[in-house]
Amino acid sequence: MPELRKDPIVGRWVIIAPERLARPNAYTTRADHQKDAFDPFLEGNEDATPPEILAYRQPGSDANGPGWRVRVIPNKFPALKIEGELTKRGDGIYDMMNGVGAHEVIIECPHFETNMSRLSVDNIREVMWVYRDRLVDLKKDPRLVHGLIFKNSGRQAGASLDHCHSQLIVNPIVPINVQEELDGALEFYRYRGRCIFSDMIQQELATEDRVVIDSPNFLVFCPFASRFPFETWIIPKAHKSHFEDVTRQGIEELGVVLKQTLRKLELALDDPPYNYVIHTAPFDHKDLPHYTWHLEIFPRLAGVAGFEWGSGFYINPVAPEEAAKFLRDVDVDLD
Amino acid sequence: MPELRKDPIVGRWVIIAPERLARPNAYTTRADHQKDAFDPFLEGNEDATPPEILAYRQPGSDANGPGWRVRVIPNKFPALKIEGELTKRGDGIYDMMNGVGAHEVIIECPHFETNMSRLSVDNIREVMWVYRDRLVDLKKDPRLVHGLIFKNSGRQAGASLDHCHSQLIVNPIVPINVQEELDGALEFYRYRGRCIFSDMIQQELATEDRVVIDSPNFLVFCPFASRFPFETWIIPKAHKSHFEDVTRQGIEELGVVLKQTLRKLELALDDPPYNYVIHTAPFDHKDLPHYTWHLEIFPRLAGVAGFEWGSGFYINPVAPEEAAKFLRDVDVDLD
Repeated sequence: MPELRKDPIVGRWVIIAPERLARPNAYTTRADHQKDAFDPFLEGNEDATPPEILAYRQPGSDANGPGWRVRVIPNKFPALKIEGELTKRGDGIYDMMNGVGAHEVIIECPHFETNMSRLSVDNIREVMWVYRDRLVDLKKDPRLVHGLIFKNSGRQAGASLDHCHSQLIVNPIVPINVQEELDGALEFYRYRGRCIFSDMIQQELATEDRVVIDSPNFLVFCPFASRFPFETWIIPKAHKSHFEDVTRQGIEELGVVLKQTLRKLELALDDPPYNYVIHTAPFDHKDLPHYTWHLEIFPRLAGVAGFEWGSGFYINPVAPEEAAKFLRDVDVDLD
Repeated sequence: MPELRKDPIVGRWVIIAPERLARPNAYTTRADHQKDAFDPFLEGNEDATPPEILAYRQPGSDANGPGWRVRVIPNKFPALKIEGELTKRGDGIYDMMNGVGAHEVIIECPHFETNMSRLSVDNIREVMWVYRDRLVDLKKDPRLVHGLIFKNSGRQAGASLDHCHSQLIVNPIVPINVQEELDGALEFYRYRGRCIFSDMIQQELATEDRVVIDSPNFLVFCPFASRFPFETWIIPKAHKSHFEDVTRQGIEELGVVLKQTLRKLELALDDPPYNYVIHTAPFDHKDLPHYTWHLEIFPRLAGVAGFEWGSGFYINPVAPEEAAKFLRDVDVDLD
């Protein structure tokens, strides 16, 4: 019997329909990685990209030359631009504003690698720390209210280059999915006086069915109302609403946990294309008692897309309990 | 300069970023249609599908045999099932219910055809009338509250068979996108006493920039805050919240308008994969003064997916004014 499950935070219903797994071609896609004919993200090709905004470099190496480990550049085809006034205006029933903001690319490694899962733990830690550094910096701009960090890995997940990278879009508005989470979490907090994410973590740890990794300060789990097969979240156990408030110690552990998680997905699903998104609270709030930042990972498996486009209604053929069990059982070595 | 636009109904912000059109491969995908090795939807192959729920047939022809024009069958891999109790229950902070509902497939023509745009106007009218008939019938079931009609056309749009078909999912809950529209429209109605969809139609007709087809009783336009390039909506000009209350006369005109629209998209975008979804009010309301049903079409163009997964935040490289102009200028012959 299929089951309808309600996301406790935003109130979105999802159909968990394991029967649909029998559908022809319902499953598995290998990421279509091709070695880019020319790789502008490679060490030595720095002049093929816009000048860097930030890079973690060997002492003595020059900006926009070799010697970096992680490098941040403006997106060459930006969705938002940092220059200009944030003019808000209306036209009849319609509202609009200039697309002021930042759109940056984080090049995660100097050598050619397609999947972050194969970077070293130290490398992944530095990428996380770059995210934090960029958010701390962009937060100073009073026009900007929210930073969205995301990764498209593999062509089918929207990547236009195969070399490992992630992106940062800093917005003058809060994206609706984050706003809905904030609203839902605030409603829960007003009613019960607790953070819904903390309640969720407690319940997941108590039942264990959907837990993938239970690390001292982070929980990796497949959420109860997973929209996609093998949807996996990483969340800090201690209440923190802003990603950029993460500590050095937190990043030490997050690097290990993220590597383990991506590696498990890679091995379990034969190197699938995937996206991840960090959900974090808006800049213009201090630490919120009702919200916890988290990282959501969505493998892109064949034959499961389609219907949710434009309906906001999801059918997931893999119960998160099954996905979590499968992922728990995958052994991974680190480095 | 990119522009941030707010959807006036649900409050979702979209980035309209024409600069991104310069991105390599940002554009056009031909639908990957392959003639299915075996086509279970072909006239004569009725025994390869579950028994029909409804068919428009030649007088004297037998159920589940040849002689039909449009045929409705249960989905062989259903996301929801019609049998059983609608048991609602909770588990800690989580809520769930049995997946009771209907999941049906509407086979749109007895011969092999991949794109509805190439069916005759009469054929399309009958498909629309079948939608109406199925909603009227399923509405009688007190467990069910909403009917979602949608089409996946082409493999990249989620179709698992190429033979023209659409689907109907009747739910015990309201999908969140429709609920958000209802909530946003109600808020507008309480504030201004008018249906926001009527205001939108008036403003679109006044400016004409985003109008694709202005038919006596229907407007075809690219919405102000289009999430996707060439996103196109068809909406009745007269206020009607429920699709199933459409009249014979309405369907006469809708058949022409839908065929014209799909044909324009086919010619303009080289037969792209696409999805459409009918947004209609829940069964358990009478005609709502603040809501108007409409059909939303999303061509699936290469390189524009990715980021919106999990963020609910859209970047659209094609301004709807450009898309509408392009579509207006495509000449189409009917039949």
